[in-house]
Amino acid sequence: MIEVKLPDGAVMKVSSGTTPMEIAESISSGLARNVLSAAYNDKTVEANTPLVENGDLVLYTWDQKEGKQAFWHSSAHILAQALEEQYPGIQLTIGPAIENGFYYDIDPGDHTVTEKDFGLLEKRMLEIAREKHPFVLRSISKSDALAHYTDQKNSYKVELIENLEDGSITFCDHSDFTDLCRGGHLPHTGFVKAVKLTNIAGAYWRGDESNTQLTRIYGISFPKQKLLTEYLNMLEEAKKRDHRKLGAELGLFTFSKKVGQGLPLWLPKGAALRERLEQFLKEAQRKAGYEQVVSPHIGHKDLYVTSGHYEKYGADSFQPIKTPADDEEFLLKPMNCPHHCEIYASSNMSYRDLPIRYAEFGTVYRYEQSGELHGLTRVRGFTQDDAHIFCTPEQLNEEFKAVIDLVLYVFGSLGFEDFTAQVSLRDPEKPEKYIGNTENWDKAEKAIINAAQEKGLNYVIETGEAAFYGPKLDFMVKDALGRSWQLGTIQVDYNLPERFDLSYKGSDNEFHRPIMIHRAPFGSMERFVAILLEHTGGNFPLWLTPKQVNILCVSEKHEKYAKKVSELLENAEIRALVDNRNETIGKKIRESEVSKVPYMIVVGEQEAHQNMVSVREHGGKDHGSMPVSEFVSLLQGVVDQELKTFEP
Amino acid sequence: MIEVKLPDGAVMKVSSGTTPMEIAESISSGLARNVLSAAYNDKTVEANTPLVENGDLVLYTWDQKEGKQAFWHSSAHILAQALEEQYPGIQLTIGPAIENGFYYDIDPGDHTVTEKDFGLLEKRMLEIAREKHPFVLRSISKSDALAHYTDQKNSYKVELIENLEDGSITFCDHSDFTDLCRGGHLPHTGFVKAVKLTNIAGAYWRGDESNTQLTRIYGISFPKQKLLTEYLNMLEEAKKRDHRKLGAELGLFTFSKKVGQGLPLWLPKGAALRERLEQFLKEAQRKAGYEQVVSPHIGHKDLYVTSGHYEKYGADSFQPIKTPADDEEFLLKPMNCPHHCEIYASSNMSYRDLPIRYAEFGTVYRYEQSGELHGLTRVRGFTQDDAHIFCTPEQLNEEFKAVIDLVLYVFGSLGFEDFTAQVSLRDPEKPEKYIGNTENWDKAEKAIINAAQEKGLNYVIETGEAAFYGPKLDFMVKDALGRSWQLGTIQVDYNLPERFDLSYKGSDNEFHRPIMIHRAPFGSMERFVAILLEHTGGNFPLWLTPKQVNILCVSEKHEKYAKKVSELLENAEIRALVDNRNETIGKKIRESEVSKVPYMIVVGEQEAHQNMVSVREHGGKDHGSMPVSEFVSLLQGVVDQELKTFEP
Repeated sequence: MIEVKLPDGAVMKVSSGTTPMEIAESISSGLARNVLSAAYNDKTVEANTPLVENGDLVLYTWDQKEGKQAFWHSSAHILAQALEEQYPGIQLTIGPAIENGFYYDIDPGDHTVTEKDFGLLEKRMLEIAREKHPFVLRSISKSDALAHYTDQKNSYKVELIENLEDGSITFCDHSDFTDLCRGGHLPHTGFVKAVKLTNIAGAYWRGDESNTQLTRIYGISFPKQKLLTEYLNMLEEAKKRDHRKLGAELGLFTFSKKVGQGLPLWLPKGAALRERLEQFLKEAQRKAGYEQVVSPHIGHKDLYVTSGHYEKYGADSFQPIKTPADDEEFLLKPMNCPHHCEIYASSNMSYRDLPIRYAEFGTVYRYEQSGELHGLTRVRGFTQDDAHIFCTPEQLNEEFKAVIDLVLYVFGSLGFEDFTAQVSLRDPEKPEKYIGNTENWDKAEKAIINAAQEKGLNYVIETGEAAFYGPKLDFMVKDALGRSWQLGTIQVDYNLPERFDLSYKGSDNEFHRPIMIHRAPFGSMERFVAILLEHTGGNFPLWLTPKQVNILCVSEKHEKYAKKVSELLENAEIRALVDNRNETIGKKIRESEVSKVPYMIVVGEQEAHQNMVSVREHGGKDHGSMPVSEFVSLLQGVVDQELKTFEP
Repeated sequence: MIEVKLPDGAVMKVSSGTTPMEIAESISSGLARNVLSAAYNDKTVEANTPLVENGDLVLYTWDQKEGKQAFWHSSAHILAQALEEQYPGIQLTIGPAIENGFYYDIDPGDHTVTEKDFGLLEKRMLEIAREKHPFVLRSISKSDALAHYTDQKNSYKVELIENLEDGSITFCDHSDFTDLCRGGHLPHTGFVKAVKLTNIAGAYWRGDESNTQLTRIYGISFPKQKLLTEYLNMLEEAKKRDHRKLGAELGLFTFSKKVGQGLPLWLPKGAALRERLEQFLKEAQRKAGYEQVVSPHIGHKDLYVTSGHYEKYGADSFQPIKTPADDEEFLLKPMNCPHHCEIYASSNMSYRDLPIRYAEFGTVYRYEQSGELHGLTRVRGFTQDDAHIFCTPEQLNEEFKAVIDLVLYVFGSLGFEDFTAQVSLRDPEKPEKYIGNTENWDKAEKAIINAAQEKGLNYVIETGEAAFYGPKLDFMVKDALGRSWQLGTIQVDYNLPERFDLSYKGSDNEFHRPIMIHRAPFGSMERFVAILLEHTGGNFPLWLTPKQVNILCVSEKHEKYAKKVSELLENAEIRALVDNRNETIGKKIRESEVSKVPYMIVVGEQEAHQNMVSVREHGGKDHGSMPVSEFVSLLQGVVDQELKTFEP
């Protein structure tokens, strides 16, 4: 008999050799139907792996990323089988699960794999699935494994096996198909109910350009047809919401080859949106006791030698900026913290001055390979909504909670309702990996966890995931399409105060080292605007949107009245523009819809005569006609609903 | 007889050989008393140079910079005479007039010149002055001139003479002193009524470090004792108002060696001040139809090859930023215009879209020698309040006037009442020096002059001073100490639209080249804040000042009432801070005075009881006690007075 402990703390006594699936069945048949894979004592196992020692068991379903991983990894095996049947003589290489789906890289030999074959391949995969072949993992000796693939003339697998240790090698069989594999599969192929092959691409063997180019086939699979349909709809919608597409359509930003890849140019509407976001956060930060500072975009080499960044400045970075003076070189700043440390260091600080909170919308530059660049989410220059809090160890708790309040206020004001948090702590068994004394780390980690609890965050703790300089809290938000984005980070730092020899005079008249908190609720203006675009599909919250109202003249005769309405709106700080072009009102309404302006008001003979406006909302809702003052109240009501005042 | 034409157009017929002084005397004895020097046919002459041909005569008095120059140049001769007498055997080198005063560089030989001797030297100079020795310029052959200084063993003068052309060499005699000199003197030494030697410094012969180090003696002189007194007071006041000193005292900005020389760090109070200035200008620009854009601080080499700046990027600049990609290098942006051209070029423009006005508070970087750096006025990184207007030739007139309106609004709101303008036009005789066709230049120059006239500017026209790419208008403001600063520039540019191949579709359906206007009312945030600090001595306009009100508690008991008052003020958007330290009210008032906070309100027993505040203005004025609402009105009245709404 062995003891198996479940995540809820329950301990089951079962005979040695019992499988996770059998345990699931003993709990409930509903659970058993959904179990895809498992972990035992923190190691991935199959649902049908016999358990032979005491341990902790976690059962994974589709709802966990580990469950999806087993699902997609198994689907890659099915794909490989279908490919071998379809294209005899191809050589299989590797086929992992990825974030969304899976792929298999093959050396097609004389075959040419094209998307035209996807239908056939998908059909065959579903046949294999319906046959409910169990996945069976078996150990094999290195010599037998080598013999197997030498036989098949598969030099790729041979190369892989040569790098493995004898005794640790396993093959996985299903149906009449066998693959070299470490494990982590579904119980059988029958779980796969829907399959979609999505793409073909070239890929170098082991990612090295000097190796053979292979063919990579991407796919995704699901336990229900409905989930595939939803996924495809989501992809379709994501394409429509691609921030690069929307950014161009809405005239928010552009790129220029001459200015350089990855260096966004913010067009007037985008710059206005960004300014509004900045002012919104500045105002909240002012209330929370932050002070703005301004620092240059370059720093002397000495600054980065002190901060420790200079050492890490490799050949893959923007190179140093030389000057006529031999001993003087500058770096484009990759972060704002060293500058803020120098601002702190410019005064003699006392405990009475702390906490000090320096905020800056600081533009930083980091070199990315051109292939990695992507719209506003992966750029070479971006503006962080950065701030650094310098405080005493005793203040850390309160400061951390205050930062969480601010981050939650930001998310709420921008319509991100669904988020989780991750607390990253040090590995207590490897103290040598971290800077700062144990007592302070204890304090800081407790401060973060307390703060997360008190603020009622939905959080997970990841031990060993802290940075060497301190623990941290990261927020993951889900967008309207269910995609997760990391947004908002709060990090404790013991390192920079040490390196910059920062101090404050305590009430004991001695000098002490302050603790530093780095935080950025948006992360960067570029990435945030990109995510907001994809989240809202360009239908920004009313308070934020560049143009709130289109005033559409029925004909040129009504321009004068339209101008009057426009002025009334401007006085109420509503952003409106008159469309007095010589076009039909129908066309004007359609164009206003496309440009996603939240409200249109139509002014014609009747409206001018009655001193009213006819109000239509983006998306078609008709509010009928009303006096301008009522329209102003309507809009102000919406804005008040969206944008609460921050009360720290 | 010759004909002499005066600046007012009057023509006098006088006999050949008449001197400018004689002509002055014939006009009025008052004028004659004030004439210091003259120009004949655009060449500097002495007041006693005989005129022997027809020509244009300008007489210079102390009020013209040419008059001061003759005055100070002549004073350098007097200094040289006094030096030779005081330190026999020294070698004279050069002694020019400078912007404020003059200097003489000497090789002191065995002597050591110290400031202790200044009294004796000044006394001797005034003696020489009182003796009214005429300055007499005489021609001398090169060989005689060389013989004279070889005799004196003065290798410096010998070197100077060797580089002169025989026939063009003159000596100037006064008293028993002779110097090599090109001319431009007072009639006689008696004009000098007050002298002050100000400084001693080292200076290399011909400014070259590899040459002998000479001793430079600086001085200044005046035609009236009173002017010297005023000057010394002004120097004293300027020292107090030095923006570097005030910037540190008021906690506005700092520098860090680690961050790098010439790269300001804006502290919280400075950053808030700067933000307020930016918002002020942004609001005015919004009303004037500008749109904000945001561009990166670096640009690909190609951008600057296109703009033409890359060629000019020499060894004395920040060097290019290399990257891992061989064909990719970036420059720190030295100006924003190329980026704005690319923003313009990103859309298809029609004449209906013009004028386009892109504004950006764009931070640019230009390398300056470390010896040239000076506080915020000479830095390596600065933020221009930049904007670029793209318009049709027909729109240039209106756009130019609108820019002048904006500049004047900025000056008025910041207390700069005294300014002049300079219109720089092309040299019509050298059309090859300029880009753009004559017709457009004519239009642009007319537009500028018309605009300057219509706006009633006090302006001068400088022909031949235009940039190669277009004519311009510069503003010079006088600060409270009478010093002139260049602030605000408006430039027409035909070059960049050409180089970036910018176009718009005209009403004729053809493509046309837009004209570009560069303009910056502040110039740069750094320089403007420096000038504003020196102009106001740190007593900023109330609307702008970081902290408007200090709330001084008589004792800790009154803190609660002070907080209440503080909240009332905050609700009225007045920036106030409570001083509840355990210090005497006298000390708090004194410290508030030093920190230049415009208003203090004292809250004690009586005020709390009566729900009033006692108001004192910076500088001592006592406003007595009043309800908070009345105090708010008082402040709002002052702000309304200072800061008019911009009505373009």
